[in-house]
Amino acid sequence: MTTSREVRLVARPEGRPTRDLVEVVETEVECGADAVVVRNLAMSVEPYMQGRMSEHVDYATPYALGEPLGGHAVGQVVASTVADLPEGTVVLHEKGWRELSRLRPDEVQARVPDGTDPLALLGALGQTGFTAWVGLSLVAGLQAGETVFITSAAGAVGAVAGQIAKAQGCTVIGSCGGQEKGRVLRGLGFDAVVDHRAGPVRSSLKEALASVGRTHLDVTFDNVGGEQLEAAIRHMGDHGRIALCGAISTYDATSPVPGPRNLLLAIWRRLRLEGFIVGDHETHRSRFDQRMTRWLADGTVVDPRTEVAQGIENAFDGFLRMLDGASTGKSYVRLAD
Amino acid sequence: MTTSREVRLVARPEGRPTRDLVEVVETEVECGADAVVVRNLAMSVEPYMQGRMSEHVDYATPYALGEPLGGHAVGQVVASTVADLPEGTVVLHEKGWRELSRLRPDEVQARVPDGTDPLALLGALGQTGFTAWVGLSLVAGLQAGETVFITSAAGAVGAVAGQIAKAQGCTVIGSCGGQEKGRVLRGLGFDAVVDHRAGPVRSSLKEALASVGRTHLDVTFDNVGGEQLEAAIRHMGDHGRIALCGAISTYDATSPVPGPRNLLLAIWRRLRLEGFIVGDHETHRSRFDQRMTRWLADGTVVDPRTEVAQGIENAFDGFLRMLDGASTGKSYVRLAD
Repeated sequence: MTTSREVRLVARPEGRPTRDLVEVVETEVECGADAVVVRNLAMSVEPYMQGRMSEHVDYATPYALGEPLGGHAVGQVVASTVADLPEGTVVLHEKGWRELSRLRPDEVQARVPDGTDPLALLGALGQTGFTAWVGLSLVAGLQAGETVFITSAAGAVGAVAGQIAKAQGCTVIGSCGGQEKGRVLRGLGFDAVVDHRAGPVRSSLKEALASVGRTHLDVTFDNVGGEQLEAAIRHMGDHGRIALCGAISTYDATSPVPGPRNLLLAIWRRLRLEGFIVGDHETHRSRFDQRMTRWLADGTVVDPRTEVAQGIENAFDGFLRMLDGASTGKSYVRLAD
Repeated sequence: MTTSREVRLVARPEGRPTRDLVEVVETEVECGADAVVVRNLAMSVEPYMQGRMSEHVDYATPYALGEPLGGHAVGQVVASTVADLPEGTVVLHEKGWRELSRLRPDEVQARVPDGTDPLALLGALGQTGFTAWVGLSLVAGLQAGETVFITSAAGAVGAVAGQIAKAQGCTVIGSCGGQEKGRVLRGLGFDAVVDHRAGPVRSSLKEALASVGRTHLDVTFDNVGGEQLEAAIRHMGDHGRIALCGAISTYDATSPVPGPRNLLLAIWRRLRLEGFIVGDHETHRSRFDQRMTRWLADGTVVDPRTEVAQGIENAFDGFLRMLDGASTGKSYVRLAD
């Protein structure tokens, strides 16, 4: 038996989540038969977690009240009754939000290979990067030379998506909030940036297109919804494809948010809008892993990240900081060294 | 030289079109070299024409001010200087809204075969039926046994779409306005009907699904937009497909109309919304023609139609009647016997 702490949901959010939705609780963890105990090094905080705190989400199980939250984490096995997962093994799993996680063998999603930075498994080489690649390649069918708009491009998924599109010879425009993030995006190779805090996205996007010598978008990878999705639709060309990955502009809403007012353009321009959940595409994971490993090795893709908090007691504050847009790239909480 | 009359656009609509947008003008028509003159028997009136009266449409050329409107018509050659289009030939073309149409050979879209009712070329066997088939088969990828929702199902395209879906072994729910149209839809084989005048479409659609023993829709063929599209999204199952064909609920709007407030469900349920323009799919026309000819011959599909007016001087009133929802199936204006 070892003492651990975990973050439990004690109330469901109405609007933007607040610190009082959770409690940090001390627990005792025992390995028992056919299991491992993992000391978590770092855990991911992601926008989708806001949805799972609500009971209205329907594509995933809502987090249960009184139970710990969950999400991706990487950690090291510190106790084991599983022969091929000895102590010292570094693994990726989905029982984050706790210092120690007890895992059955089938709950271990991947071993982190020697020489690989465990944090990469939370970022470009993990679900984050896979989401970017699935949305662009499998959902939007991105082709070399196309013009791509990525919303929330300074976020974890967006920052990788933009680099994947650049790697495929595309012209890439990203949206973000604030000039500092814009500089980060340009550093990652984005051709143009739309600062949604600086004015109407619709006109900024038009200027961004003009600045790269293009008249329209072929693909949009949307994490935001609302005004940004509407602006994207406005500037899509015929037969454009929009991968709907998230709608962070609407997650705080306590009443339904109107959709894009220009959906008639989807008919006139033969647009395809398609939502996706990355978990549906696991059969393509090894193809992705090979590419992303190569891209990271040769520097085609870099994996920007922000440590939004340290320690389980501060993890939820880190999550809130990420929601506030205070971070760039992958947001994670460091739980141990 | 022969005297004809034609309907010319003299003002652009703001909101619902009105009679004073057009003038009926007498003209002289001369056949000249390499052309035919056709006396039109009937012309089509369709919702898309409202869009083309505006200068803001961007997938098609707006109708020019001072020029005659256009659209599908069938008529008989009464003068010809084209060897293989002798007098008496019955043809389909797109220079409707006039009593006599002068056509170059390449403006003749089809000859009406002997024994075929010319009006069928305006309806199930023409662009109307082709639109229904393209949307269901090519855009939505309809599969046998699926559950389909068709909005404006008593309209020209919807009435044929429902029957095509039934022919493919699907369960079909249609929306329409009023009990009389509901009876017509049931007569065409629709399994359930949603009367959008009788209450909220969202709850009526839920009841309709329950009445046919289904929990969700696989495919929606949308002609309406607005509340009906939002209701459809609410009841789509995972990986559902929505073919966006039209948005008649928004055509009268003088300011932008909010889109569906539940687009987040498109992500959660991996929905695909895809707009289409039937003209992009001409390469599939002969495949469609074969099927629809057989379906009409064996009674699988019937071609409901409403004569909304007689005579060119009343054609625009017929168009307005169609917009008001006064007709069922294909709306046409009879111009000659």
